[in-house]
Amino acid sequence: MGRIDLLADRLVDHPLVDHPLVDHHCHGLVRRDLSRAEFEGMLTEADTPGPPGTTLFDSQIGFAVRRWCAPVLGLPPHAEPDAYLARRVELGHEEVHRRLLSAAGIASFCVDTGFQPEPLTGSADLARWVGGQGFDVARLERIAELAAVDLLTGQIGVGHFAETVRARIAERAPTTIAVKSVAAYRAGLDLPADRPSDREVAAATRTWLGEIRDGAAIRLRDPVLHSFLIWCGVEEKLPVQIHVGYGDADLDLARTNPLLLTGLLRALAPTGASIMLLHCYPFHREAAYLTQVFPNVHLDLGLAIHNTGHGSAALLAEALELAPFAKVLFSTDAFALAELFLLGSTLFRRGLAAFLTAGIDDDAWTFADATRVARLICADNARRVYALP
Amino acid sequence: MGRIDLLADRLVDHPLVDHPLVDHHCHGLVRRDLSRAEFEGMLTEADTPGPPGTTLFDSQIGFAVRRWCAPVLGLPPHAEPDAYLARRVELGHEEVHRRLLSAAGIASFCVDTGFQPEPLTGSADLARWVGGQGFDVARLERIAELAAVDLLTGQIGVGHFAETVRARIAERAPTTIAVKSVAAYRAGLDLPADRPSDREVAAATRTWLGEIRDGAAIRLRDPVLHSFLIWCGVEEKLPVQIHVGYGDADLDLARTNPLLLTGLLRALAPTGASIMLLHCYPFHREAAYLTQVFPNVHLDLGLAIHNTGHGSAALLAEALELAPFAKVLFSTDAFALAELFLLGSTLFRRGLAAFLTAGIDDDAWTFADATRVARLICADNARRVYALP
Amino acid sequence: MGRIDLLADRLVDHPLVDHPLVDHHCHGLVRRDLSRAEFEGMLTEADTPGPPGTTLFDSQIGFAVRRWCAPVLGLPPHAEPDAYLARRVELGHEEVHRRLLSAAGIASFCVDTGFQPEPLTGSADLARWVGGQGFDVARLERIAELAAVDLLTGQIGVGHFAETVRARIAERAPTTIAVKSVAAYRAGLDLPADRPSDREVAAATRTWLGEIRDGAAIRLRDPVLHSFLIWCGVEEKLPVQIHVGYGDADLDLARTNPLLLTGLLRALAPTGASIMLLHCYPFHREAAYLTQVFPNVHLDLGLAIHNTGHGSAALLAEALELAPFAKVLFSTDAFALAELFLLGSTLFRRGLAAFLTAGIDDDAWTFADATRVARLICADNARRVYALP
Repeated sequence: MGRIDLLADRLVDHPLVDHPLVDHHCHGLVRRDLSRAEFEGMLTEADTPGPPGTTLFDSQIGFAVRRWCAPVLGLPPHAEPDAYLARRVELGHEEVHRRLLSAAGIASFCVDTGFQPEPLTGSADLARWVGGQGFDVARLERIAELAAVDLLTGQIGVGHFAETVRARIAERAPTTIAVKSVAAYRAGLDLPADRPSDREVAAATRTWLGEIRDGAAIRLRDPVLHSFLIWCGVEEKLPVQIHVGYGDADLDLARTNPLLLTGLLRALAPTGASIMLLHCYPFHREAAYLTQVFPNVHLDLGLAIHNTGHGSAALLAEALELAPFAKVLFSTDAFALAELFLLGSTLFRRGLAAFLTAGIDDDAWTFADATRVARLICADNARRVYALP
Repeated sequence: MGRIDLLADRLVDHPLVDHPLVDHHCHGLVRRDLSRAEFEGMLTEADTPGPPGTTLFDSQIGFAVRRWCAPVLGLPPHAEPDAYLARRVELGHEEVHRRLLSAAGIASFCVDTGFQPEPLTGSADLARWVGGQGFDVARLERIAELAAVDLLTGQIGVGHFAETVRARIAERAPTTIAVKSVAAYRAGLDLPADRPSDREVAAATRTWLGEIRDGAAIRLRDPVLHSFLIWCGVEEKLPVQIHVGYGDADLDLARTNPLLLTGLLRALAPTGASIMLLHCYPFHREAAYLTQVFPNVHLDLGLAIHNTGHGSAALLAEALELAPFAKVLFSTDAFALAELFLLGSTLFRRGLAAFLTAGIDDDAWTFADATRVARLICADNARRVYALP
Repeated sequence: MGRIDLLADRLVDHPLVDHPLVDHHCHGLVRRDLSRAEFEGMLTEADTPGPPGTTLFDSQIGFAVRRWCAPVLGLPPHAEPDAYLARRVELGHEEVHRRLLSAAGIASFCVDTGFQPEPLTGSADLARWVGGQGFDVARLERIAELAAVDLLTGQIGVGHFAETVRARIAERAPTTIAVKSVAAYRAGLDLPADRPSDREVAAATRTWLGEIRDGAAIRLRDPVLHSFLIWCGVEEKLPVQIHVGYGDADLDLARTNPLLLTGLLRALAPTGASIMLLHCYPFHREAAYLTQVFPNVHLDLGLAIHNTGHGSAALLAEALELAPFAKVLFSTDAFALAELFLLGSTLFRRGLAAFLTAGIDDDAWTFADATRVARLICADNARRVYALP
């Protein structure tokens, strides 16, 4: 994979950040063309459109799409939304994906494949489009929910739930380089600090199965089980990604404050396991504190970058107040729309360049140091944590 | 009402924001001249002056008064506090009101008349001064407290409390365009999500009346009743304003985090009712998240703008990271002092112009788009939500 | 103490902030040379180094050391970490202390002597190095823990605990100008608002002694006793410093939010006692709100300034949104390393100059006002609160 090739089509940025990115947390793309309503529905964390007469294009992310994505589809910057969407359909989703992905300048994709309301492209597809590398992130709750199905259908006994989950994490595909917890969306992040005992796990499992048998959806949302799953990942020596902060209307943002994880992080510190706090907005300063005081904790700004568009540079500067520069990673958290890969990478590069350049202008660090730090944050920190080839 | 007339006396701002404002939440003005101690006491959210030897003029809002209000009273910018206050007395409060209001460039006033520790001017007075329009916002807790008085005096039976409240909201004056909850000051925002049943309302009412009969003040502070009142407004198809975040020493700021409303907002979303989160500081990013994920939720920065003076532009930029631009409104939350109308409008216009201009300079959006967005935020969003003529 | 002498060796800053500082909260310095691991261990709030292959020098504070401290030791700005540490050893810690302290331009040191994992220099030593003044801050929990030892050894009876603590605060050295609470590190800041009764104090003391006799460390962490100690300081008419927010991995950051103190601050307001909220990050906006609405509450940014390096100016601007300028103080919270005195003072002066200059450029205040405000924040507010000579 040549560096030149990867960057050939990319939007020109500052030389400080002019090298391929490792996207340590993203998702696949939809395999079809979209209506305007569908596109708007996938653009932000809102489930539904705004009030009549309003459009999500009138927001930071909407303006960012028009500014940065339109030229890649052959339109002038700031093309009107309808023109943009018409051009998108005209080109077809495959060509749109190819163009936007190529322009994003991402070399490696670590894809969470655990949420697929419709069939999405996989890590190999993404990698193939740009001549990069694809890796997978296994969603812990999905593994547990599939094990629950096996319990319910009698394929395994309730006493074997814990070992089944552990075995399935252990038997992962060679491309699986991390696990991910979505406890933030379910029970919230106020999780038991200590590794739950086998007895506690068995009791929680029985309660959960009872609820399912009484008609509840097969949806894990028990703090003990979320904690157990995280400890399973740690015991398998896998980095554990944890959704933190901002997400869609499904979650209760107050319960996603990373400070709720403090006890668990303190208990995990001696294991040396890498913990990755994803997104973190608007608790990115709290997350940065955790990355400073716990040696194994890292963060990214994930979906907050593309959602805040032109405003995203400020978040990065805030996260980098306390976070050691070896503890900050890049991710797009792109989902469904290839635009989100382009926006995530472009806005991240611009924000990082602005942060580093401001420091150079203020004589806070040298150009040489800034260059080295940019490489850490864009790719090398991820390569170190995930031991990427 | 001519646009030229309204703006004739106003401080010149950026052309992007050079049009009349709709102030969707404010209060009336005092009808008398004030001593320095009285003026300082009304200037900020503090009940009492600072330590001896200090003055609230040494704060963002104090410097903003000297910078922006002094010239309107015919003094040089940055006039000393004593000179400013002497000039204020010299002109008399009516002339001071007239001058500052005219310079504020506000076309429509939506006035919360529910808090009057002394007689204040009404919406019609404010509108008359500038040739604008006046509307009223009814305070829900005040309606309930007046109904409680009728219960206590036997004019209505306890079983009729709920219907009485509903009827009084329904029988509102034609100028009343919204209701407002001050639960933040009372029980806090951790309110029941679901519409309380009639039985729950009756039980809570009986408890409350019992407390009053035992000597408590007639001051509603029951989560069930606050929630009931909000639902009453929604059922009347009225936008509901909710005080959020920053206020005076009376409140417990931690209980005014808008994320505490998440469950209630989720329950209200299907009704389509417009919910207006007022002020929000320092939780404006949290509030902005809510405006993105819930289609019916809006925000303003209210009193945070005039209190943070020169620093207020930063807040606006933070709120506009996530908030869709069709969900952000202008308000002054001016109370008692006409200075607060001038500061609220001037600082808001300057902050919005700075935000939009920075985006133009960064090529994040075009001048045409910025112009359109400015109109939304200054006036058109409020016109849409409140269906103003 | 000549102002010229104090500033002679100092890094040149903006004339607005070119006068001696009062450091109202700091600690002593280590009395020995340090290895790189020891230096990195003392540089931030992390207990342990980061992952292998990473260094805390790659963080805001690390770059700030290289930028600002290296020249004072005779190296070029941005010297490499190894060169810096070699030079440090070459000069010896006494010469390093002397140089960095002289360059810091601090006139008065208020030293918390209550935490000494190894022998540190005292306030008199610090003052002597620069020809300044030294004062002491007594740590409340330390006083109580020493009294507990006396209880355990039978020197005083359990019924005399409260009066013993009060007497020891009353019998303080003449250099002791304040007391400090570290409740944030122990029980958290959700403390009883009202002054605990003697009976409550006695009961809590008995429980605590029982725990110690059962093998617990002599470490006070009872909300009633923390509150009692704060009230003891208030009754002695001493300013009470309270650790708030950011600290090392020992604390649970969520329990250090200053809003948890709201009830206690409300109860303390009528006493007129000065309460000093230390550090406050990332809750500095919340702390600033408290300084506005409670007449006796003040804040500083303490260790957040040196830890956030180049990013620290933004924090100061945020704190100064709401905090009255007569309520903001300077402190370094320097501990063990003289670098932290230099970074704290240099970054604070630069941040304050940037804040005041931006206001002048925006015509928010005049140069004369900015000069006056700078003096308040750099020194005069501390002189007023602590009645320094």
